Amino acid sequence: MDRVKVGIVGGGQLGRMLTEAARPLGREVTVIDPGADCPAAQAGAEQIQASFTDADAVLKLASRVDVVTWEIEHINADALMGLPVPVEPSPKTLSIIKDKLYQKRMLVDAGIPVADFMDLNSEKLDVDMHSAFGAFGNVIVKTRTGGYDGRGNMVVTPENWQELLAQFGSTPLYAEKIEHFQKELAVIIARDVRGTIAQYPVVETIHENNICNLVLAPANIDPRIQAVAEDIAHETASVLEGAGVFAIEMFLTEDDKVIVNEVAPRVHNSGHHTIEANRTSQFEQHIRAITGLPLGSTTAVSPAVMINILGERNGKVALTGQDKALAFAGTHLHLYGKASTKVARKMGHITVLADSVSEAYKIAIVARKELTI
Amino acid sequence: MDRVKVGIVGGGQLGRMLTEAARPLGREVTVIDPGADCPAAQAGAEQIQASFTDADAVLKLASRVDVVTWEIEHINADALMGLPVPVEPSPKTLSIIKDKLYQKRMLVDAGIPVADFMDLNSEKLDVDMHSAFGAFGNVIVKTRTGGYDGRGNMVVTPENWQELLAQFGSTPLYAEKIEHFQKELAVIIARDVRGTIAQYPVVETIHENNICNLVLAPANIDPRIQAVAEDIAHETASVLEGAGVFAIEMFLTEDDKVIVNEVAPRVHNSGHHTIEANRTSQFEQHIRAITGLPLGSTTAVSPAVMINILGERNGKVALTGQDKALAFAGTHLHLYGKASTKVARKMGHITVLADSVSEAYKIAIVARKELTI
Repeated sequence: MDRVKVGIVGGGQLGRMLTEAARPLGREVTVIDPGADCPAAQAGAEQIQASFTDADAVLKLASRVDVVTWEIEHINADALMGLPVPVEPSPKTLSIIKDKLYQKRMLVDAGIPVADFMDLNSEKLDVDMHSAFGAFGNVIVKTRTGGYDGRGNMVVTPENWQELLAQFGSTPLYAEKIEHFQKELAVIIARDVRGTIAQYPVVETIHENNICNLVLAPANIDPRIQAVAEDIAHETASVLEGAGVFAIEMFLTEDDKVIVNEVAPRVHNSGHHTIEANRTSQFEQHIRAITGLPLGSTTAVSPAVMINILGERNGKVALTGQDKALAFAGTHLHLYGKASTKVARKMGHITVLADSVSEAYKIAIVARKELTI
Repeated sequence: MDRVKVGIVGGGQLGRMLTEAARPLGREVTVIDPGADCPAAQAGAEQIQASFTDADAVLKLASRVDVVTWEIEHINADALMGLPVPVEPSPKTLSIIKDKLYQKRMLVDAGIPVADFMDLNSEKLDVDMHSAFGAFGNVIVKTRTGGYDGRGNMVVTPENWQELLAQFGSTPLYAEKIEHFQKELAVIIARDVRGTIAQYPVVETIHENNICNLVLAPANIDPRIQAVAEDIAHETASVLEGAGVFAIEMFLTEDDKVIVNEVAPRVHNSGHHTIEANRTSQFEQHIRAITGLPLGSTTAVSPAVMINILGERNGKVALTGQDKALAFAGTHLHLYGKASTKVARKMGHITVLADSVSEAYKIAIVARKELTI
């Protein structure tokens, strides 16, 4: 048992749930997080209070642990290179994924279907945007780095792009064809240090205002589509280096094609239901993967629906309605321990287990409505 | 949400798993435990380092929390009376259960079947033991208080009882008829503050050297026996006051009768599998119950077998074989974070989920053998 001490860059809700999964396996966790008494620290992790991008803090972390991982992409990937302890998954994978243009190119090179895209050169943006509209028709422009939950994405037209893109300043951008989709799908997939891969059943995700808000497990899709999505997830994982959990987000297009939208090299919101709904949670799976243990069973034990609890105002947390929400059968609450709420901030989630996804969905919607935070 | 801060007398493995279950529900935990950095403290609980029987520490605990509960019976029940905050379940129930003779009388008064028993008066032990042998034939003598995991129990014969009982000194004792059983059964049952009861499916427990070592869920018993055991568990819970989880341990006798062996007014080793194998774990259930929340679903999501990891030597913990144990499909490990191991000390447990109990059993046995601690 040589990878006993786990270091995580980031101590938010994902770091917290990783900490909770690590302890029963005899693993101790230290996190880097800028906020005092971060969600992971509340769950018993040691905390180095520092910025996610602080290279000195990463060195300090590495001096205290046996393996380093992360819970967010917006960190200093360079600082993870050349550390004296193993880093999982590979920081190289993180560097590529962090830049969405490089990520797309990596996927295309591996023969994985994605929406058409092109680089935008800020020196000749006029020319490139003209090409993009010509080639794609409907265009979405994205910042290559730093975007999340829809931030950094902009749907543009030939009429408004100059005005809208001005807000991005000199940030590197690229353009993508807007693919109209029937459903969004996701697969959580894990690789251990020996290269063994285990993948979870395909789920459907429902985004609202670009934030993953609902997860339906399993996805209600044709078995043929399911098989295609599983294959694509497996192929995608094969080009990502290192051990750990990855989330593969996909579109099922209107003409029944499955394409990869985005890859996250970490535990992910689309896998929170696995805590209750699968034999091994994505959090336990990640800890097993990066500490050299074999992967656990990904078998589903129940249909489930996960719904996020997003902040609806700015201010101190004041939870109400918990008793009503939990009175619905099969309802489970996960609060993240954040002291203040903000509009659209992820404050917690509810997972509902039921005999069918449609039943779980109905309960999740009404249970969520009972809660204010 | 008025019962936010939970105080637990005891911070061992049960306090640790309660702490882990409390956090996602937005509850903060403080424990009393004599050991430095106790298992619950490692999981993020605040710790008051003091003896379980320290009345001042209990007062201090009560001044910091909104509700007090416990994870072991061998505490100061009197210190829990008259506290300025609610205590769940009722300390009166604890006082009765702590004294096994009173516990038996309470059960008999409620019409619940138990093995025949009689008080032993130390002033006339000769006479009383003679009566016990006459009435029961096979006799086991138990200390009324302080016994656990077989300690405080003594099987005696008319020839050896004087010699054997000498070791108990002046400790109050009682005698019980030895009931030969086919199986030992257990039911975890919970009551919330509104009086609603939820019970888990009947499990079979297998004791080795008087310590609960294996739990098979569900028990492989005739549906008629199952119904009887469920009814008896429900009746038993009805005489126990206050909110929380209770464990009802039963014998299925050789002539197919179900009798109650012992009641534990707390989360219990026979319910550890519920973490993975039921929609709501016994730990989440207890926190829901005592903090005024509605109970969760007790539905099983998979057959399961739990096997304890008991210490096999005395010394510092040195875990080996974890990778081999976890390589078996459906295997989950729970280490308790104890720094030193002792013969028969509960160091952790393994829960195996599989498609049948017999499959889970086979895996549990071989997985356990891979581990040394």
